[in-house]
Amino acid sequence: MSLEQNLFEQLKLDYRQIIINYFVNNEASRERIDKFINKVFDYNLPIPKIIEIHMDLIDELSKQLKVEGRSDDILLDYRLTLIDILAHLCEMYRCSHR
Amino acid sequence: MSLEQNLFEQLKLDYRQIIINYFVNNEASRERIDKFINKVFDYNLPIPKIIEIHMDLIDELSKQLKVEGRSDDILLDYRLTLIDILAHLCEMYRCSHR
Repeated sequence: MSLEQNLFEQLKLDYRQIIINYFVNNEASRERIDKFINKVFDYNLPIPKIIEIHMDLIDELSKQLKVEGRSDDILLDYRLTLIDILAHLCEMYRCSHR
Repeated sequence: MSLEQNLFEQLKLDYRQIIINYFVNNEASRERIDKFINKVFDYNLPIPKIIEIHMDLIDELSKQLKVEGRSDDILLDYRLTLIDILAHLCEMYRCSHR
């Protein structure tokens, strides 16, 4: 596995932790998000890659819920996580831009 | 009304048109979004302002639906519009950044 692939796999694991703990909404949860945003910014990761990480994880969780015979409606709420991350990351790029 | 307020009011009107036509998903709809993103980028509008435009519009539409005795569940789908816009805008700032 290349260094780049390694980093991407690590980001996927980080994002999974963020999603799973998102609605706990404590300090650790906020720190985890800030760390992820800083990492993505430092790596200059293309935004479509973040969308890919999100979609892949949601697909996986959806399949898991269906296997358990549960509705996957709850997963829609995680769009808020993605909005949260994109908004902060976008503001970071904006402020460093001019 | 100051020039800045004027621009902000115009952006609110633009965003309303985007939301209302988002799931039509034709060429005009895509062009409207691209134009909005370019405008926001040119004005260097802080990202929290975009979130504010979105939230205010969703609140307003929600009240309207309630008055009509209809569910506002459908409004959750418009989070996709916000994700779409933030992702494209963020990529634009990212690419112009280094």
